[in-house]
Amino acid sequence: MTVNKIQTDSELGFDVPALPGMAVSDIQTPCLIIDMDSFDNNLRRMAEVITPYNVSLRPHAKMHKSIDVARQQLAQCNTTGICCQKVSEAEVFARAGIRDILITNQVCDQVKIERLAGIAALGCRLSVCVDNETNIDALSAEAKKQNVHINCLVELDCGAGRCGVADAEQASELATSIKEAEHLIFDGLQAYHGSIQHELDHDQRKTELDAVIKKVKVCLDSLAASGLNCPVVSGGGTGSFLFEASSGVYTEVQCGSYAFMDADYGRVHNRDGKRLDRADWKNALFILTSIMSTAKDGQAICDAGLKVQSVDSGLPVIFGRDDITYVSCSDEHGVIEDKQNQLKINDKLYLVPGHCDPTCNLHDWYVCVRDDVVVDLWPVSARGKAW
Amino acid sequence: MTVNKIQTDSELGFDVPALPGMAVSDIQTPCLIIDMDSFDNNLRRMAEVITPYNVSLRPHAKMHKSIDVARQQLAQCNTTGICCQKVSEAEVFARAGIRDILITNQVCDQVKIERLAGIAALGCRLSVCVDNETNIDALSAEAKKQNVHINCLVELDCGAGRCGVADAEQASELATSIKEAEHLIFDGLQAYHGSIQHELDHDQRKTELDAVIKKVKVCLDSLAASGLNCPVVSGGGTGSFLFEASSGVYTEVQCGSYAFMDADYGRVHNRDGKRLDRADWKNALFILTSIMSTAKDGQAICDAGLKVQSVDSGLPVIFGRDDITYVSCSDEHGVIEDKQNQLKINDKLYLVPGHCDPTCNLHDWYVCVRDDVVVDLWPVSARGKAW
Repeated sequence: MTVNKIQTDSELGFDVPALPGMAVSDIQTPCLIIDMDSFDNNLRRMAEVITPYNVSLRPHAKMHKSIDVARQQLAQCNTTGICCQKVSEAEVFARAGIRDILITNQVCDQVKIERLAGIAALGCRLSVCVDNETNIDALSAEAKKQNVHINCLVELDCGAGRCGVADAEQASELATSIKEAEHLIFDGLQAYHGSIQHELDHDQRKTELDAVIKKVKVCLDSLAASGLNCPVVSGGGTGSFLFEASSGVYTEVQCGSYAFMDADYGRVHNRDGKRLDRADWKNALFILTSIMSTAKDGQAICDAGLKVQSVDSGLPVIFGRDDITYVSCSDEHGVIEDKQNQLKINDKLYLVPGHCDPTCNLHDWYVCVRDDVVVDLWPVSARGKAW
Repeated sequence: MTVNKIQTDSELGFDVPALPGMAVSDIQTPCLIIDMDSFDNNLRRMAEVITPYNVSLRPHAKMHKSIDVARQQLAQCNTTGICCQKVSEAEVFARAGIRDILITNQVCDQVKIERLAGIAALGCRLSVCVDNETNIDALSAEAKKQNVHINCLVELDCGAGRCGVADAEQASELATSIKEAEHLIFDGLQAYHGSIQHELDHDQRKTELDAVIKKVKVCLDSLAASGLNCPVVSGGGTGSFLFEASSGVYTEVQCGSYAFMDADYGRVHNRDGKRLDRADWKNALFILTSIMSTAKDGQAICDAGLKVQSVDSGLPVIFGRDDITYVSCSDEHGVIEDKQNQLKINDKLYLVPGHCDPTCNLHDWYVCVRDDVVVDLWPVSARGKAW
């Protein structure tokens, strides 16, 4: 089937950038593209890479916010659990039938705690992170009220300086409180270091991660000394997960970005000194953009600006083109340096976004492409689910 | 009426951060808040400020993407036209009954041109910017096909270095082509300088804007010499519009941010040396955020990160608090320096976003608040309409 006309909002009831069967040249820009061959590669490769280790993959759905992506990740690695970051996000996945969700975050507001317990009441194995004593009381009271059990991980700050208790002593105190609280289960530790993921140098990353692993071991010893069993140690992202996986202390890793890659992760080097996007992971996520002005000599303007991508981790990279560069970004425009004036009006380019997570969250649809043909449209199911 | 319980997705059919009648303390965070008293002030003040000048306000709806906001802006200033930046965005406003829309951008893709003409076919007076010759042919052919007329403004680059022709000669050539094209009307010039808006110093801004006005005058003289009537000169934003309004050459100004203000515009100084957010415009837009972790001495973590705000123009400012500072932002977290450990779990703070346009585009709802009570919920009607 070939489809070459986009129906508008009023005809279709909603606005889509493409329809299955359509050629890439007919996709409405700007929009998100998943290159399905690269995406399949990344999922298959993760299964291969992680198999030798005694850890589970619990992919982080905050990255893609897509039920379709999550289901494929779970099937590929033969695991059942995902991570989410927000209660409203977790609701989307729980209602879609995902039966094991860890919220890698604190949930403190009473209405959110009610919704959290409501997810457990749907039959989902629900876990949440805790770093303060009063939260334990609130979680316990609501779990009891809704007659569910909530698994709690004590969050240990691993150096990111965000949430999480500072040391083993505080962790043990919270773990003891959780164990004693009705309808809560002390399940282990959340020990994730976000900023290490993006450290470019492999050896520097390893040095920092070794310190994290050491801290986690001290914490586990302290918990054991207090008679506290710790079945789960969860952490690790796309930049560091092989360290956690081979540590002997982590039981699961929380990678998300490996499925899509982005420009910022792409610059990180692996132990062979190769960029991550030239080694295990291929760029599978793109912003398809069109040229809309070539009025200036030496530059072209594309239609992808701040409303379709987050530039917090740098500007996008133009895929497969060393001759042109995306040099600045405003709300709805991107300026592309094109010294040889090669670009023409309506030319299409594939941008690798600087940072995939907040970029995906700007879009309603993933346009899935294989062999230059649209093969599927996947909703960004939990887009905007921020509470 | 007092409402103190948020219904969840499954009960209500969609997920809202608040309901009318609810106290601020019960709003789900993070979410966008419009302080209605400040918003009313800004709209009223714009009407007062612009009245002495012989220009119309054509508010830019790309900032707020809200039908409700646009309608109030038009009513307050007794004008009928808005600006949009994208065709899909303009469709939303046209269907809501707005009858005069200028798309301040090039529309070159054939499907988009069909949709553009479709807006005119709805009975909307539609204008679009042009900076290249082939686009004129495509616009003309489609307007003829749908038996509508499209008004075209030639975009003159005023120094932003983005879209737009470089000089009067090129502008006259395009204007002539438009005048000769079937079903197109040459309506004048788009002459907007984006980056000047954010120049902090008033005199520097005036110097740069004087050069723009001079360039526009040269262009108008050139058009007149070619026998081309130029009824519209459109441009100017919140940072510069008084210069355009008093220039004698501009016929309309395109301000958007004045209605909400943001932290970046707030730092700009007016001719009295006052910050814009301490003079005519009050901060009316906020991100309401809650504290979710106080595990570290001297800092607190809030629930507003990159997925609810754009930090391209700087981090948010905590409204009304000099004692605490938002110091870093990750996907779902903000780190707040709180040297005196004043913040407690679930405390709420009002953040002034760094840049309102891409921040609003991340949200589905504006929660309208007056006297600490939710008085309305306005959808971000054109959120995500990026093509």
